[in-house]
Amino acid sequence: MIQFYAPEIETLPVLPPEESVHCCRVLRMKEGDIIRVTDGKGNLFECELADANPKGCLLKVIRKESVPKYWDFDLTIAVAPTKNIDRIEWFVEKSVEIGVDRIILLQCEHSERKHIRIDRIRKIAVSAMNQSLKVRLPEVTELIRFDAALSMKKGKGYLAYCNEKYERKEFCQNYKGNHDVTIFVGPEGDFSPEEADKAVSAGFIPVTFGKCRLRTETAALFGVQAAHIISELKS
Amino acid sequence: MIQFYAPEIETLPVLPPEESVHCCRVLRMKEGDIIRVTDGKGNLFECELADANPKGCLLKVIRKESVPKYWDFDLTIAVAPTKNIDRIEWFVEKSVEIGVDRIILLQCEHSERKHIRIDRIRKIAVSAMNQSLKVRLPEVTELIRFDAALSMKKGKGYLAYCNEKYERKEFCQNYKGNHDVTIFVGPEGDFSPEEADKAVSAGFIPVTFGKCRLRTETAALFGVQAAHIISELKS
Repeated sequence: MIQFYAPEIETLPVLPPEESVHCCRVLRMKEGDIIRVTDGKGNLFECELADANPKGCLLKVIRKESVPKYWDFDLTIAVAPTKNIDRIEWFVEKSVEIGVDRIILLQCEHSERKHIRIDRIRKIAVSAMNQSLKVRLPEVTELIRFDAALSMKKGKGYLAYCNEKYERKEFCQNYKGNHDVTIFVGPEGDFSPEEADKAVSAGFIPVTFGKCRLRTETAALFGVQAAHIISELKS
Repeated sequence: MIQFYAPEIETLPVLPPEESVHCCRVLRMKEGDIIRVTDGKGNLFECELADANPKGCLLKVIRKESVPKYWDFDLTIAVAPTKNIDRIEWFVEKSVEIGVDRIILLQCEHSERKHIRIDRIRKIAVSAMNQSLKVRLPEVTELIRFDAALSMKKGKGYLAYCNEKYERKEFCQNYKGNHDVTIFVGPEGDFSPEEADKAVSAGFIPVTFGKCRLRTETAALFGVQAAHIISELKS
């Protein structure tokens, strides 16, 4: 099953250029074919291809359906992009497949990477949404400074922190599931002690994810999966 | 913290060539430096570098420690390599970081990939073990035909199956944690109905991982993480 993304479908029933090329050139779909389209805002549309134009496929909406979210809580993950950008792109793909509401890209004191190509990362998010047949596109922020990101906490805040300065709880034991949650995962060099202090003052709980040393992107995905699995078990 | 791998250290206290190059050329370590070495069999060695030879570093073992496994059960994941080999290599890296005992590479009826470079995949496993400071190298099999792999089931068997022919349970609700478990994840084209029949006859339980359509490698990693998280919660 193939899904396309047309964010403005309700006011402009046209597939964006890239999706149109994919539809006409790669999949060779024709006028009259029926396709599945989402607006990334929770709606699913059954559409007929009215004009198979690779610059912009015109759609005739046959049916609209509002799809409930699979999970009952708001899940925000904030992560510092890795030096090797492949690793964070991989994380975005996987976390969107599994399910996340918001990805904050963090600029930390120890971040080795100061720039990201946000358009590329958002494209990966769209593709993962379509691939996993989801109808909500997670928000993916630009790089945001750590201090500013702290105030974006929604629900309970957790800080995956490696330094042993703070007594750390085990995330899987502390998070009770089905409640809004925000998880911060630091860069390869960890959060700085000052960043950790600020997070704790802002109400974040320092945690570990099991007993193993995980790479940044592995820890971030572990957080996303753990939030879902715990919520599923406790529901 | 850096860890090296020397599988035969107890009889031949020398780092293999690749590890030796990494040690001498990349990290520029010298005679007299103290390094952390594992044999991949559960033992950790504190060693002094007796000869920093990039062709084979000679080690003087100072201390040996047997390290208990982080988890109390045996976890086998069987997965069909994806068409795009990067995806399965990524899975091997991540699952070794999180923790797995055995990775079976499955040859299924719908497999698009008939060959793998097992040496490359095993190298990734070694690197992920060292990176996450683990001291047990998971077994990674050659490609094994589905029928033969069924008999390798250890503990309870689960089949992540997309087809709705069988009533499927939710893995997170069915697996109780801390018991030996074997999870089979099919290729991009899913298991064939005949394969599913054979697995069910062999005692495998058809399951889903949540409500989302996951790629092969995402599903496999989800299985690994779910087994750990459920075990952590139930312990």
